[in-house]
Formats: sequence, C-alpha cells, structure tokens
Amino acid sequence: MSTIEPAPSSVGQRGPAEHDLRDQIIQAARAHFSRFGYGKTTVADVAKAIGFSKAYIYKFFDSKQAIGQTICAQCLDKIVAAGEAGIADGRSASEKFRRFFNSIIMTTAELALEEELLYEVAAHAAEERWPSVVAYLERAETLVKEIIFFGRETGEFERKTPIDETSEAIMLVMQSFMNPLMLKQNLKGLPENPAKVINLILRSLAP
Amino acid sequence: MSTIEPAPSSVGQRGPAEHDLRDQIIQAARAHFSRFGYGKTTVADVAKAIGFSKAYIYKFFDSKQAIGQTICAQCLDKIVAAGEAGIADGRSASEKFRRFFNSIIMTTAELALEEELLYEVAAHAAEERWPSVVAYLERAETLVKEIIFFGRETGEFERKTPIDETSEAIMLVMQSFMNPLMLKQNLKGLPENPAKVINLILRSLAP
Repeated sequence: MSTIEPAPSSVGQRGPAEHDLRDQIIQAARAHFSRFGYGKTTVADVAKAIGFSKAYIYKFFDSKQAIGQTICAQCLDKIVAAGEAGIADGRSASEKFRRFFNSIIMTTAELALEEELLYEVAAHAAEERWPSVVAYLERAETLVKEIIFFGRETGEFERKTPIDETSEAIMLVMQSFMNPLMLKQNLKGLPENPAKVINLILRSLAP
Repeated sequence: MSTIEPAPSSVGQRGPAEHDLRDQIIQAARAHFSRFGYGKTTVADVAKAIGFSKAYIYKFFDSKQAIGQTICAQCLDKIVAAGEAGIADGRSASEKFRRFFNSIIMTTAELALEEELLYEVAAHAAEERWPSVVAYLERAETLVKEIIFFGRETGEFERKTPIDETSEAIMLVMQSFMNPLMLKQNLKGLPENPAKVINLILRSLAP
C-alpha cells in the first residue's frame, strides 16, 4: 500500500492526529448517532453536546460522514482484532476457522446490540462502500486465505480448488452474519446458525 | 396437513374462491403496491382503481394484509414452480441442485426487478412470518432433502452427516439469495455469486 494514501480510518480527518479532542468529538457523535440516529444528527448537534462551535469541529473532521467513517473504522478494527485473537487461539486450521468467524460474528452482534442505532451508520457504510468497509472485507478475506493455506499445509484441507474461488465463496456465505444488516435478521439464531454454516464450509474444505 | 386449515395462499380471503373479481382486485392492488408502495396504499385506493366500493372489496378480503398475503403467495408459488421445473430438468443430483437454486434465484430476482416496490410486501412478509413464507421455506427445504436423498442413493453425495443438519445449513446459506431483501444487496453478483456458493455447497456434499 502506498504511504501517501491515508489509512482508511483517517479519511476526511484534519489537524493533528493525536488529540484528545478528536476522541471527545467521536464519543459525543457516537452517543448522538446511537440515540437519535445518524441521519438526524447534525455536526451542530455534536458540537453543542461537547460545548464547542461547529467551526471548531470542522478543524478535525470535514463532514458528518468523516465522523461516521471514523466510528465505523473503529468498530471494524475491534471486530478484526477479535477475529485475529480467535485465529491465534485455535490450534488446527478448522479450530482457527471456527474461532475466527465466531469472534467476528459475536463482536459484530455485541456492537450492534449495544448501540442499536449504529446500524444506520453501518447501512450507509455498506451501501456507499466506505473505504473502511472495503479494507475490512479485504483483511478478512486475507485472513481466511491464510487459514486455508495453513490447513492445506497440514493436510487438513483439500488442495484442488483454486484458493481464490474457495475464499471468495466463503466470504459470500459468511456475509449473512458479517454484514450487520443481514446479521440483524439472524440475531435469534446466534450462535447455532453460524455454527451450522461453518460446519458446512468445513465439510467443503475437507480433503 | 389438516383439511380444515385453509391453504396458506387463501388466508383472510372471503366469498366464493373462484371469482374473476378476486383476480381483478389482486391485479389492481399489485399495480398500486408496485407503484405507490404497500405501506401507502389503502383498501380504498384499490377499490377506487377498479371502480368498486371499499365494502365490496371487503366481501373478498378482510384486510389489506390479506390482499398482500395473496400476492405474496402467488409470487412464491411461481418461484417454487420454477424450482421444481429446475429439478425435473437436471439429471444428476448436483445438476438438480444447481438448477433448483438457479431457477429459484432468477425467478425471485425477476419478480423483484419487475415490481420494485413489491420488496415492501416481501419485507412485511418476511418480518411478520406470513404463512405463505413459512410454507414456501418448508417446501424448499423438503425439495432440498429430496435432492440430497437422491444424491446419497446414487453415491454422488456423502451419507455421514445427518440429513436435517445438511439441509438446514444449506437453507441458511442460500437465504442470502432467497430472501428478497438480502438478494437486493446481491443483485449485481447474479448469476456468478450464487454459482460460487452452490459450488461450495456441492463440495461439502461430496463423499
């Protein structure tokens, strides 16, 4: 990746990167989005909540969407970190695979349940393909490929199917539980339903 | 199934079952839902469109939802019929499996593209678990089981996994393309993406 491009989580941010005020703005915005919805919150509302002027907020973020993208990126970072911890905890490739997706799904569900209205941010993020979402999905697919490579090396998984085909199909299947809007329709079936789907995928990976 | 219970497609219907007027009401309602949305259409609007009184419509349907359910059931009947034709066209179990889901998905997508706003009816149907939707999903799962049985008999599919587990997982995986609200997010990937997912499922069914 080019070093000139900003990291996906810093798109639309301005001013010094390390700043307590930035965090304060994010916290206030998160509370507002969560309570009143992303669509209905204005930059002025967020400014009011922390006692600053709108102009001051614009020193840090160039739009409401830039704030939304930062929140989205923070959530996705948390989800990926949980997934990576899951992989580290698993011994076999199958165990890594199970723990990776379980951690991702449970963290996504927790975030969604905690702050119901963040679904709205997620809806915008998914529909407008925010850079943090694209980066997240690419990272997740890379991790899936690494698990498959590992499983192919240890002889746990078959080696015939092109790895791109395998990982792409897995990402398509798991979107029902990774995409928060689809997960919303699947909340009642947690954690049994993803477990059943993961079992099906692992059968498809068997040599 | 008890003979006393009405068929799912006739819930909330009144008066003689065979009646041109019933069809006329359905056609008018369909056009209205499709153009103005299910939520915004009233029974009075439908009555006006075909030049009858509201009271007359109530002789045939006891609510707007009853009309919506009939439209929904008609769509689902068409989708199942396409799926069954797909099964009949396939020779091997894999071919039956592929054709079944391809026919279901393409018919669902066609209905959705033709009448964009019927998505709204589908949203109500899915959320409120209308009887026709429940019956449709049960029928689809039964057909999936029949294909798996056939494949197990011919030796095309493995026989170790309990059939209920297999069919349930397949239905969970395929919901991304069967549920019109999820399919809406997948329209751009037709027909390649379901084909990739179907390939993954067929690998999971291999002996």
